[in-house]
Amino acid sequence: MKSLSDLTMGFSPNCIPCAPLRALTALAMDLTSIQAFLADDLRSVERALAEMSFRDDRVGQSVAHLLSLTGKRLRPVCVAMAARLGTGFDVSARRLAVAVELVHSATLLHDDVVDLGERRRGFPTARLVYGNAASVFAGDWLLVEALRQVRASGVPGLLDELLTVIDKMIVAEAQQLAARGHLDLDADKYFEIIEGKTASLFCWAMNAGARAGGLGESACVRLSNYGRDLGIAFQLIDDTLDLVGDAMATGKALFADVREGKMTHPLIIGAERDPAIKKCLAEVLDVPDGSAVPLDLQRSIQQSLVDTGSVQESRRVAKQYADRARAALKYLPDTPVRAALESVCDTALTRSR
Amino acid sequence: MKSLSDLTMGFSPNCIPCAPLRALTALAMDLTSIQAFLADDLRSVERALAEMSFRDDRVGQSVAHLLSLTGKRLRPVCVAMAARLGTGFDVSARRLAVAVELVHSATLLHDDVVDLGERRRGFPTARLVYGNAASVFAGDWLLVEALRQVRASGVPGLLDELLTVIDKMIVAEAQQLAARGHLDLDADKYFEIIEGKTASLFCWAMNAGARAGGLGESACVRLSNYGRDLGIAFQLIDDTLDLVGDAMATGKALFADVREGKMTHPLIIGAERDPAIKKCLAEVLDVPDGSAVPLDLQRSIQQSLVDTGSVQESRRVAKQYADRARAALKYLPDTPVRAALESVCDTALTRSR
Repeated sequence: MKSLSDLTMGFSPNCIPCAPLRALTALAMDLTSIQAFLADDLRSVERALAEMSFRDDRVGQSVAHLLSLTGKRLRPVCVAMAARLGTGFDVSARRLAVAVELVHSATLLHDDVVDLGERRRGFPTARLVYGNAASVFAGDWLLVEALRQVRASGVPGLLDELLTVIDKMIVAEAQQLAARGHLDLDADKYFEIIEGKTASLFCWAMNAGARAGGLGESACVRLSNYGRDLGIAFQLIDDTLDLVGDAMATGKALFADVREGKMTHPLIIGAERDPAIKKCLAEVLDVPDGSAVPLDLQRSIQQSLVDTGSVQESRRVAKQYADRARAALKYLPDTPVRAALESVCDTALTRSR
Repeated sequence: MKSLSDLTMGFSPNCIPCAPLRALTALAMDLTSIQAFLADDLRSVERALAEMSFRDDRVGQSVAHLLSLTGKRLRPVCVAMAARLGTGFDVSARRLAVAVELVHSATLLHDDVVDLGERRRGFPTARLVYGNAASVFAGDWLLVEALRQVRASGVPGLLDELLTVIDKMIVAEAQQLAARGHLDLDADKYFEIIEGKTASLFCWAMNAGARAGGLGESACVRLSNYGRDLGIAFQLIDDTLDLVGDAMATGKALFADVREGKMTHPLIIGAERDPAIKKCLAEVLDVPDGSAVPLDLQRSIQQSLVDTGSVQESRRVAKQYADRARAALKYLPDTPVRAALESVCDTALTRSR
């Protein structure tokens, strides 16, 4: 029987995401072969995000609060890498990289309102600091600003596609909301939801970068597929981190998904293999807001997930998707950008935050 | 001294907005000269809104709930009238009319979440029936769907302009949020806020219809100005209805703005003319959520607004804007559509809901 400590991996728990530079450095350490030029791209994205001016009121402060808590910027990384496979990371590509981060940030702001989230990237959520109202409008504003950036990039077709992607993301959020507390959610439905809410935006990011870089149709399709598979792998690992991750590293409390009644992949597999776990999950759902999940309840769910190999199974499936993403790269010449794209697949699997 | 009953005007209190047909009939009664052809246009908008399919979950139900509680559809009316000044209300114009109503509906859904609204158009708000979470996503979805409709209309430039307008609307909402509870808000700031949150969308609606109808640049500018002034008049009257309207007719509780700490035009004028009113307003702000505003407190604020002529002053200013809107029409030939545009100015002033 494996112990819980066997499941920790990746960065040291001291590497808490907070300062932009630290996030970039951590990323560049994993992508050493392209550190020099991708770091420049990411810095220009950071500058553009930092320069986004908004009025100094609670809505503007909510936007600034979230954007300053830099995450992994994985979606802008996708745009930059795809663009660099073609003519490079120019002003258009930078606008698209900024746009994809803004859409992601908009969903985080609205998700935190919907889920009553309290911690995000190691800090109190914008809604806790500036209020729900400001977060609702801030999310709206980021969405509109993202669309304007795509429009300004001047790359044909991408605005329509982004509208379709946002539509898919909202449909997936609606499905997830409808499925809340339904402990019998099946894996097909789960994959349908994460494809809409997470993978579709990664897919768009790769396609957007590829188009900005002037790549041909078949390359765009292959890179879009890479993005979709990477996104699914990324979300599967995200779901395991909610259950057996390090709260210091992820920056949010463990078991947040469970408390919101979201049946993620490891839980679906766990419930198949050990139906008794559903009773424990139902008990977690009964814990009143504001109270902590009793530690023994949390431990017994974690132990069941380990004993039944459910977390490992989710990681195995994530690796399958990451491998498929990697396979989509086989037509590419052996360049530093291809190495970077491959490194991102590894990062998605080994990350601890 | 005038009594409160002198201030009721317009429709009978029995005319509660609920069924689509009733709303259209009430509107057509005011616009008798164009009833025959505008009613067809509006019916096609209603059909398009009713046919908008969305999944049968809480998000979809929130959308359906709000769209079924038909309001005045004044923004689609603007698109239809402007289009009919040109080549007519074709499929493109209908898409724009639908889009403008969807943007308006998105703001209502998010506003109700932000303001904890309980009544809308005489019925419980979507957030009360289906939850805040569903209303947040439903608003997001309506916004995206509106942009897709504008895109599909194929009229050049309108999508960019709508993105700019939505940006303005959010900035205005942010300003309004920041100004909450500030009883010393001045009239300049008030007009800046309502121009952004209300008038800019009316302005876009007129411009959109005019462009869909193939009108020339100067006609588009004049009709945009008509829309902006009409929107300001409309909002000024809206603000008076919150204070001295008939809750049965407006479909929402009296004093909702006051309780949210919004200093509207009649209150700004009232506070200038009778500074003692601020003490009463502060008392209203102290009434706990869920408790009714004491009737004597409400009455004394209303009486002060009547005694000082503040409500009448807001109506006078609204009439100035409506007159300016009407003046923008002077270059138009004397057709039924021009008569309709003039009737809408009257309706904005005399409405009771």
